[in-house]
Amino acid sequence: MTPPTAVSAVNLLRTASESRALRAMTAPQLAALAQEMRDLMLDVVARTGGHLGSNLGVVELTIALHRVYTSPYDRLLFDTGHQVYPHKLLTGRWNRFAELRKSGGLSGYASQAESEHDVIENSHASTVLSYADGLAKAYRLTGQDDRQVVAVIGDGALTGGMAWEALNNIAAAKDRRVTVVLNDNGRSYSPTIGGIAEHLAASREGTGEQPPGELFRSLGLGYLGPVDGHDITALEAALTEARTLGPTVVHVVTRKGFGYPPAEADDDEKFHAPGLFDPATGRKLPSTGTSWTGVFGKEMVRIGAERPDVVALTAAMMGPTGLAGFCDAYPERTFDVGIAEQHAMGSAAGLALGGLRPVLAVYATFLNRAFDQLLMDAALHRLGLTVVLDRAGVTGDDGPSHNGMWDLSILQVVPGLRIAAPRDAARLRSLLRAGIDIPDGPTVVRFPKGAVPEDLPAIGRIGELDVLSATGAQDVLVVAVGPLARAGIETAALLRAQGLGATVVDPRWVKPLDPALAALARRHRLVLVAEDSCRSGGVGDAVARLLRDADVDTPVRTFGIPAAFLEHAGRAQILDEIGLTSRHMARSATEFLARRSPMRWPLPVSLGGPHPLSSTTATRETAS
Amino acid sequence: MTPPTAVSAVNLLRTASESRALRAMTAPQLAALAQEMRDLMLDVVARTGGHLGSNLGVVELTIALHRVYTSPYDRLLFDTGHQVYPHKLLTGRWNRFAELRKSGGLSGYASQAESEHDVIENSHASTVLSYADGLAKAYRLTGQDDRQVVAVIGDGALTGGMAWEALNNIAAAKDRRVTVVLNDNGRSYSPTIGGIAEHLAASREGTGEQPPGELFRSLGLGYLGPVDGHDITALEAALTEARTLGPTVVHVVTRKGFGYPPAEADDDEKFHAPGLFDPATGRKLPSTGTSWTGVFGKEMVRIGAERPDVVALTAAMMGPTGLAGFCDAYPERTFDVGIAEQHAMGSAAGLALGGLRPVLAVYATFLNRAFDQLLMDAALHRLGLTVVLDRAGVTGDDGPSHNGMWDLSILQVVPGLRIAAPRDAARLRSLLRAGIDIPDGPTVVRFPKGAVPEDLPAIGRIGELDVLSATGAQDVLVVAVGPLARAGIETAALLRAQGLGATVVDPRWVKPLDPALAALARRHRLVLVAEDSCRSGGVGDAVARLLRDADVDTPVRTFGIPAAFLEHAGRAQILDEIGLTSRHMARSATEFLARRSPMRWPLPVSLGGPHPLSSTTATRETAS
Repeated sequence: MTPPTAVSAVNLLRTASESRALRAMTAPQLAALAQEMRDLMLDVVARTGGHLGSNLGVVELTIALHRVYTSPYDRLLFDTGHQVYPHKLLTGRWNRFAELRKSGGLSGYASQAESEHDVIENSHASTVLSYADGLAKAYRLTGQDDRQVVAVIGDGALTGGMAWEALNNIAAAKDRRVTVVLNDNGRSYSPTIGGIAEHLAASREGTGEQPPGELFRSLGLGYLGPVDGHDITALEAALTEARTLGPTVVHVVTRKGFGYPPAEADDDEKFHAPGLFDPATGRKLPSTGTSWTGVFGKEMVRIGAERPDVVALTAAMMGPTGLAGFCDAYPERTFDVGIAEQHAMGSAAGLALGGLRPVLAVYATFLNRAFDQLLMDAALHRLGLTVVLDRAGVTGDDGPSHNGMWDLSILQVVPGLRIAAPRDAARLRSLLRAGIDIPDGPTVVRFPKGAVPEDLPAIGRIGELDVLSATGAQDVLVVAVGPLARAGIETAALLRAQGLGATVVDPRWVKPLDPALAALARRHRLVLVAEDSCRSGGVGDAVARLLRDADVDTPVRTFGIPAAFLEHAGRAQILDEIGLTSRHMARSATEFLARRSPMRWPLPVSLGGPHPLSSTTATRETAS
Repeated sequence: MTPPTAVSAVNLLRTASESRALRAMTAPQLAALAQEMRDLMLDVVARTGGHLGSNLGVVELTIALHRVYTSPYDRLLFDTGHQVYPHKLLTGRWNRFAELRKSGGLSGYASQAESEHDVIENSHASTVLSYADGLAKAYRLTGQDDRQVVAVIGDGALTGGMAWEALNNIAAAKDRRVTVVLNDNGRSYSPTIGGIAEHLAASREGTGEQPPGELFRSLGLGYLGPVDGHDITALEAALTEARTLGPTVVHVVTRKGFGYPPAEADDDEKFHAPGLFDPATGRKLPSTGTSWTGVFGKEMVRIGAERPDVVALTAAMMGPTGLAGFCDAYPERTFDVGIAEQHAMGSAAGLALGGLRPVLAVYATFLNRAFDQLLMDAALHRLGLTVVLDRAGVTGDDGPSHNGMWDLSILQVVPGLRIAAPRDAARLRSLLRAGIDIPDGPTVVRFPKGAVPEDLPAIGRIGELDVLSATGAQDVLVVAVGPLARAGIETAALLRAQGLGATVVDPRWVKPLDPALAALARRHRLVLVAEDSCRSGGVGDAVARLLRDADVDTPVRTFGIPAAFLEHAGRAQILDEIGLTSRHMARSATEFLARRSPMRWPLPVSLGGPHPLSSTTATRETAS
């Protein structure tokens, strides 16, 4: 870690009373501080990963906020948390910053556990204004009217409807102390789109037919700006004025990546969350292998060439979801709707009604925002559209809000929805095509973050089920969902080493499950289900229900992510901690079968030859 | 049914080419037609129930739409579907209108199966603009630019964020043919709130600092209006002009309940969806018994008196959710946020952060809109707030979008969330209080529509489980969720008549389940779980998982709503069709136990004395 070099900064940042010390600084000291903050962020993020461009852009803004307001008495709230590094540095976390995003280190987002200055933790976009509205209502009701509530929100997040629901409410209460700091850098990941973006651009550039900020004024909000977001003096003047007003939008114009030329010139958003890179050159370190996202993106380009009715939608994440290639090839068939998952799904439904075949690519965790629309507007209307869920499963480093661990549970209730979970690139390509070919209802294809593994061919097929391995007696049936196929095969190998036979299947379509699974389960003594999603209500529960409904009593044991928020850590570490590993599954199976054996074998069972239990396979079927 | 009396109307409405016939009508004929439409709606809705005020308000608007546009070539889309009765009457469904909302009769919403003029079916609020955006994109891409897409949306629905996500996108495409007809009656259920409502009021009344519609203009949309929504000539002029423009908002001012004085003077929204009433006087027929909603509402007033930190939130449904009494008593502690469930949850989180105790009352099906916020903004932040889900379970008459059948499944994944399902008024009061007393995480209390049954006292308590009945041998454990307690007890009685013993428990808290349930299940031969929610991923699956994780192999059978959209019908009829009845459950249990008996008794088992199977209770445990 680069230690701070300016004496002023050292003194400042190691004291508890940041606001007072900050306020005492001179302009040159502030400029030096800003430079140090940028240097440190650049140095650390190059090595730890994390959000860069957005944080570089709000250094001066954050300094100004902490000079004008007294946190934590006044409440500074940051939307989504892609821009809280400067806030962390100014609130006592400079010396721990090198441990960013590491297990046990600083979170990549705001964190109540880290600091009393962090009001809200990481969440999805566009929520901060609702928090601010509620907080201000609470302060008003409890006689704490002097506490200021300041919500920092990006222009991109303003394309999310929840922000407008909140603005509508904030505007209605002229007596509450809410200041909305609109951090307008013209982008979310992608350039911000739509009428809002055009209005903000016109306000920034003075080119509109209306005065700047008329959109907010007509809603009944105050408006100050536009303000140069890299001019601390101007920022302080505007924020100080806003303190005296009713609910007001302070329109702050910043540049994403400011102060770091490779990030400033970054039209492709490589420096939004760059992964590892060389800070001197901005050159990114080579990533390992082909990503799932890349396989999807390339296949979409091919599908687009074959089917002119296929259109693609993204909620402000063209590059990260792999749609950039499709957009380059078929720009008129590609729609970025903003950070607006609800509308993404609703307009996809409209496109399908109009006879086209929409493919909506979104991070798995963000689908939560469009659940109601998938259910009511797509499924109820039996519309053919395909939702591609990237970053499904444990993502790890980005913390609890970014794990894609909810989809396989909440989507189980959606009537007529079909869900595919490919285990490798070949299956991703074929299941994506199969999903797109289904005309009369929505389909989902989900895959994880990171590098796609080597293709894992099936050795057989039973109905829709791919058989991946079938060794020895039919003791254990392993149902391995998607990328857990490899862990399933390894589990079978471990069982075999214990003298137990196992069959490993990949259901490919996890909703609806092929009823052949019940018949297959009946011939085994135990069924294990492994999925990279929440255990509660997921595929494991669905397999168990399928068996119950088919009157098959073979016991089932399910392995997945517990219904808990996972602290940020590496994916492998998390999988190990939650027992989603072949070793844990094999051990559970061995212990179970030993318990159920009439002979009650002592544990651990460790035999070289065929397991004596394997001869009793029929026992359970007879008994049940 | 009152037959149409005007010759013009008879001729008009029985032909297929409604638009042409409508266009040929004179002004007096149109006035007579409007009157007949109102008379018919009044007459029918008084007997069938349904939405009245909103439909009375759009008679002239709907006539004008069908005169200016040529449906179904042009596409008329109605948001939510609370205002489609006039559209139904004008598109060939006059003679079937008396069968409104009856099983096999007309849906209370738009229906693709009923008519090619119905583009979208019933859904939740604020979605129509997204559909329109998608449809217009599709027509543009497929060279059908001449097809007009017209979306009718209420001012209330504009408080929903999804509408703004869509407006942002619609505004961006100046070359697509989308006309937004803003049906501004100043209300949703409740009067529309917030900055948007103030802007619309100022536009209506010419009292704003800005020109009318400046909010839309500043977003880049065209604006025409305000237009008198009961003046067909004025409406046609505005709509005809809009046809020639880019994306445009036509601001139509209507009066909810227009033409029926009791509904026009209806500040309490008694005529939004009035139930049965006398059309001559507007007097409502007495409803039967105390409703669940009423019990909740009264208890909230008492809680409010005891705890000054308790605040209440509604998403534009103060009366229907039972909060009107609380609002009367504590107006400053009651917040109507508009049709904005996302913001309702987010601002509740903010209120909790500020030290207050929010209670958010919402229909169960609308919670889908706030799932992400409950997960990320309430649960991840461990905030104490209580969500009260009214209309949980099968509601029946309102069709598939209004059954509250999703919550118990999707909420299972929310870490730290506690869910209570009271079986009667006494439990509703005590569980509501218990939920509100939990400080460190969200709680949910869910109950159905309609009259609350008589209190059903427990005969014992095991951990958190109320024991409702324990008769004979421990053959069957019936886990009856909430209002299915009565069905559970009846199931036990039917089993007893077959010589089988049963224990009936109400878990009260269905998440987390008390582990005592697993120990209790171990002592029985079969577990039945009955819940008034979706079978997939619901409490039944949770009970089965609890048993698996506790290594209890007692078979489980689950009864609930299948993952399917239920067509509108009476609640009792639906419960019978889906097998959520004591008769079906008892029969399933008897058949199951007979199958599992080594003696393989023939079915149906019908014995007077103790069932021979009851002596074999231990067999299964030994075998498994």
